[in-house]
Amino acid sequence: MTVTILFAAHSLWDEYREVFPAALAAAGIAAQVVTEAADPAAVDYIIYAPNAPLQDFTPFTRTKAVLNLWAGVERIVGNATLTQPLCRMVDIGLTEGMVEWVVGHTLRHHLGMDRHIVNPARVWDPTCPPLARERPVAMLGMGALGLACARALMALNFPVTGWSRTEKTGLGLPCLHGEDGLKQALSGAEIVVTLLPKTPDTENLLDARRIGWMRKGAVILNPGRGPLIDDEALLAALDSGQIGHATLDVFRVEPLPKDHPFWAHPRVTVTPHIAADTRAITAAQVLVENIRRGEAGQPFVNLVDRARGY
Amino acid sequence: MTVTILFAAHSLWDEYREVFPAALAAAGIAAQVVTEAADPAAVDYIIYAPNAPLQDFTPFTRTKAVLNLWAGVERIVGNATLTQPLCRMVDIGLTEGMVEWVVGHTLRHHLGMDRHIVNPARVWDPTCPPLARERPVAMLGMGALGLACARALMALNFPVTGWSRTEKTGLGLPCLHGEDGLKQALSGAEIVVTLLPKTPDTENLLDARRIGWMRKGAVILNPGRGPLIDDEALLAALDSGQIGHATLDVFRVEPLPKDHPFWAHPRVTVTPHIAADTRAITAAQVLVENIRRGEAGQPFVNLVDRARGY
Repeated sequence: MTVTILFAAHSLWDEYREVFPAALAAAGIAAQVVTEAADPAAVDYIIYAPNAPLQDFTPFTRTKAVLNLWAGVERIVGNATLTQPLCRMVDIGLTEGMVEWVVGHTLRHHLGMDRHIVNPARVWDPTCPPLARERPVAMLGMGALGLACARALMALNFPVTGWSRTEKTGLGLPCLHGEDGLKQALSGAEIVVTLLPKTPDTENLLDARRIGWMRKGAVILNPGRGPLIDDEALLAALDSGQIGHATLDVFRVEPLPKDHPFWAHPRVTVTPHIAADTRAITAAQVLVENIRRGEAGQPFVNLVDRARGY
Repeated sequence: MTVTILFAAHSLWDEYREVFPAALAAAGIAAQVVTEAADPAAVDYIIYAPNAPLQDFTPFTRTKAVLNLWAGVERIVGNATLTQPLCRMVDIGLTEGMVEWVVGHTLRHHLGMDRHIVNPARVWDPTCPPLARERPVAMLGMGALGLACARALMALNFPVTGWSRTEKTGLGLPCLHGEDGLKQALSGAEIVVTLLPKTPDTENLLDARRIGWMRKGAVILNPGRGPLIDDEALLAALDSGQIGHATLDVFRVEPLPKDHPFWAHPRVTVTPHIAADTRAITAAQVLVENIRRGEAGQPFVNLVDRARGY
């Protein structure tokens, strides 16, 4: 039997037009992949991205799953017409890229690289930085990405404390939760990484009050979602020296507007939403695995919990 | 029986005056630690650093070992008066610091951080870097430090090829040797790390001819020894674009003179010999272990091979 797959993420079609059909064929799945559905009621699976033109899922009465190509689902999870199962992308390439960005910028701040990269006065100060084992890190968010980053940092001897909204155990590192746990995590760290999904509960997670819990001069890395941080509170804390530096990959508006104060602030580094990107070659395997599961009547992987919002 | 230990590394005495006697006591070794020897013929062990005033080892007729506080021994190994066993420092803190510097700067170049750290034009280019798995690294030097760095990079998925002067096997990574192996290692890598000891055989290891074997635009990281690289050949290769960037922690003259062209070159980053430093608290354990071995008649660890020079 041939399955009909609507590739609705039009802006990404060029990346997938070869690797996705090839991955289907390699898995032995007979499929017709289309970019427009002549008959929505005949579509078995929808490959989706939140910026796709398709916004009304009502006519897709036979569709077994909507497979999102992004890790973030906040721009689709609230869509009332979407009653079909929704799966997030958990791509090995995306995870690897995130780990590389987080470990790289953690080491950059840990080693104080910036003063060597830009050193017009030719200052030679041979004072060694402390060892990673002396540099506590807090990882806010213990999902697949946060956990992978925490483990990579621990392999380099950084003492990592995890934090998640709800209690998590058995992850192999100290893991705090709730508001009291957040205070403890923030006050104990010199580098804080925010890797939470954007939900109503996580918006402005780092606001003025909680930024005040942090150690003076601590560093924030945000490769998660822009709205996790209150921009105005962060700027005030950077001005006062409460926060030593912020390296930000995600923003409320992207590209970050040219006149945004983050660009000019000497204690802010802007990276252009490159921490993690879905890689077509590995992501296509994830899509195919979920289609295989759907056809075999098995549960989908990376299924979104609508109540939690991710 | 009380052993007499001459702490001849005077410039480091302040760092060790508390932790070293404490480590001896913790190991149950009865010792008298002195900074000047009233009677050289009564000294059992010498704690040394190559910049120490002591240069004539002839009168130390009873000394069982000279324990160097530095990893590098090139400034002592040629001393004709030194007939006693000489041990290098292999300190866990030194190794950890080296791994952090090498992994940090590898990720910095891999991720192209510099163009985000300094970005006055506010360029937003969301093109993702390749994954580490697509970024081949060559590690020149497969000693304790090179191997630890190689393994840390491999844990982040970098494909690492090792190279050593003499054949080494069973290290868990592809390991080349000799001149043909060097050509293969250099031509296959986008990032080359030089972590060899300085010996007559390794001086100017990277000269104009061998730099010419590298991929156009490749990056060199040198946390090993300054003389491993021919400075003039490197500057010419940086000017031509054959080498994309060099991040150097060690130099023929340190501190690097203010008028050295490395300071001003836009493709060079100077770090002030901070990649690896002996940490007193962990190094004291290594000293004590060798004194314990000497007293028990067991072979010393980290013994220098005078013929090889390290």
